[in-house]
Amino acid sequence: MGKQQYLVEVFISLKEVVNDPQGLAIRDGLHNLGFDEVDGVRAGKYLQVSVNAGSPEQAQQRTAEMCDTLLANTVIEEYRITVADRATS
Amino acid sequence: MGKQQYLVEVFISLKEVVNDPQGLAIRDGLHNLGFDEVDGVRAGKYLQVSVNAGSPEQAQQRTAEMCDTLLANTVIEEYRITVADRATS
Repeated sequence: MGKQQYLVEVFISLKEVVNDPQGLAIRDGLHNLGFDEVDGVRAGKYLQVSVNAGSPEQAQQRTAEMCDTLLANTVIEEYRITVADRATS
Repeated sequence: MGKQQYLVEVFISLKEVVNDPQGLAIRDGLHNLGFDEVDGVRAGKYLQVSVNAGSPEQAQQRTAEMCDTLLANTVIEEYRITVADRATS
């Protein structure tokens, strides 16, 4: 019955079809600095969430609910979740 | 001698010792929505960079240079880089 703390990583990025002005600005900045090998940049968010859950699957599922309700704007963004074990509590 | 395009993922997060008000705000928002199992949130950036390079090692090394000069503020942030193969060009 004990719950464990899981370190959940969330990667949120704009959908392919959505314009990404921030990514374009970063790409131009890299070009100005001489990094001509860069073809494109997409900018997104990276969240590390500490979640107490009974299993990795539960941690994953609850985090997906968090993404759908708060963390991501699913109209224009998509997200990926990975769960890593951490110290038992 | 041909160059390939690599999809490089960059994860930028605040160092452990640095305050993260954005992460705290997200955590409080999750608590208000009933996600009481969340102990903490750290907010960071996630970048997908398309890099032309002769090898995965070169793509990794050049992206580290980009992080040090533009993408990350190494005084308060740390970064992690992963390189994934992609279609040959």
